[in-house]
Amino acid sequence: MKIGILGTGMVGQTLSGKLVELGHDIMLGTRDVAGTLARSEPNQYGFPAFSVWQKQNPKVKLGTFADAAKHGEAVINATNGTASLDALHLAGEANLNDKILTDVSNPLDFSKGLPPTLSVCNTDSVGEQIQRAFPGVKVVKTLNTVTVFLMVNPGLVAGGDHTLFVCGNDAAAKTQVSAWLKDWFGWQDMIDLGDITNARGTEMYLPLWLRLWGALGSGMFNVKVVK
Amino acid sequence: MKIGILGTGMVGQTLSGKLVELGHDIMLGTRDVAGTLARSEPNQYGFPAFSVWQKQNPKVKLGTFADAAKHGEAVINATNGTASLDALHLAGEANLNDKILTDVSNPLDFSKGLPPTLSVCNTDSVGEQIQRAFPGVKVVKTLNTVTVFLMVNPGLVAGGDHTLFVCGNDAAAKTQVSAWLKDWFGWQDMIDLGDITNARGTEMYLPLWLRLWGALGSGMFNVKVVK
Repeated sequence: MKIGILGTGMVGQTLSGKLVELGHDIMLGTRDVAGTLARSEPNQYGFPAFSVWQKQNPKVKLGTFADAAKHGEAVINATNGTASLDALHLAGEANLNDKILTDVSNPLDFSKGLPPTLSVCNTDSVGEQIQRAFPGVKVVKTLNTVTVFLMVNPGLVAGGDHTLFVCGNDAAAKTQVSAWLKDWFGWQDMIDLGDITNARGTEMYLPLWLRLWGALGSGMFNVKVVK
Repeated sequence: MKIGILGTGMVGQTLSGKLVELGHDIMLGTRDVAGTLARSEPNQYGFPAFSVWQKQNPKVKLGTFADAAKHGEAVINATNGTASLDALHLAGEANLNDKILTDVSNPLDFSKGLPPTLSVCNTDSVGEQIQRAFPGVKVVKTLNTVTVFLMVNPGLVAGGDHTLFVCGNDAAAKTQVSAWLKDWFGWQDMIDLGDITNARGTEMYLPLWLRLWGALGSGMFNVKVVK
């Protein structure tokens, strides 16, 4: 399947690496192709620069946001939530319309120090902003509540027996994304929270997630909803 | 042990009912004693009015916020988070100083419709507001991430194998509160997130909690942190 992934950071790299391994045809999108290829320093977590990573993942294509959106039968937003609307406008409404856009972003604002605050919350969310700005796109919010390593491999923790949240306005799109998450990555326990306004709930969980990361000394954890 | 509980709603009633059952000497505090006793209608969840409940729980004393704070060797804030600072000022700094104040409140603002928004979040929290306003009080934030029925009986869900978060600036106070939560209610899995700024994390989890309540059709659930 042809998938466009917006964002060439840790999340875009990890998702695309797993998806090409599964045989999918992936194009990563970036604002500035030449600039992305020119950087060679690892990020603050030691994650390799795109140019280094790409040598080990030659099947993953690179293009502009618009190229990647056009390439994809489905699109994944893996940009930082504070930049997502801008990236999606560059991707272009016509290249996104009628497609499923899986939004895995969080509006983490690191500009005021650590831990980051959210650039939008409480009465709105990135998921909702995207859906309002692109009414012809089927936005499904998910995966934003776990570290990227668990996104593509939930079995790394507790045998995969933990919970992922899904929300969006289009029921068929949510069913499709949930099927992909199961088939691609092995997610078993997914809770459909309802419409896209529920993105407020999952994005506002991030402050607790970040603090748990600090308390546990690792991002390799998740929550299991028990009832 | 003498405990003052501020707030006569569902949370104050349930906590005090359990604690008198365990042999503790409980005084509930309210803004207006006569007004609290005069109400006879159940709340919107069908929870009985205080006057009705009190007949079945005659051992629980009722006083002003100041009476209850003075009564308690330890104090629990069970008011709505939007009203907590006001209630605590009425309770009086001198009646609270040097005591452990277990803050179980959430800043849920129902004035703009359902689901409620938070009256404070992202860069601050009720827990922090209280600690700043009452620097001589040992504020420990906990229990605010579960329904009141689970607060006092975690075993009602998944055999009690799920997680409670604790935070606050005073390490000894957190150790004491954690011991109480285990002894009184049976909590086994408690994660110390760190200082009181972590209250932002647990209070901002509420929007997800409320949406899970909607999706699951019941508040009888919790999360288990798995790693």
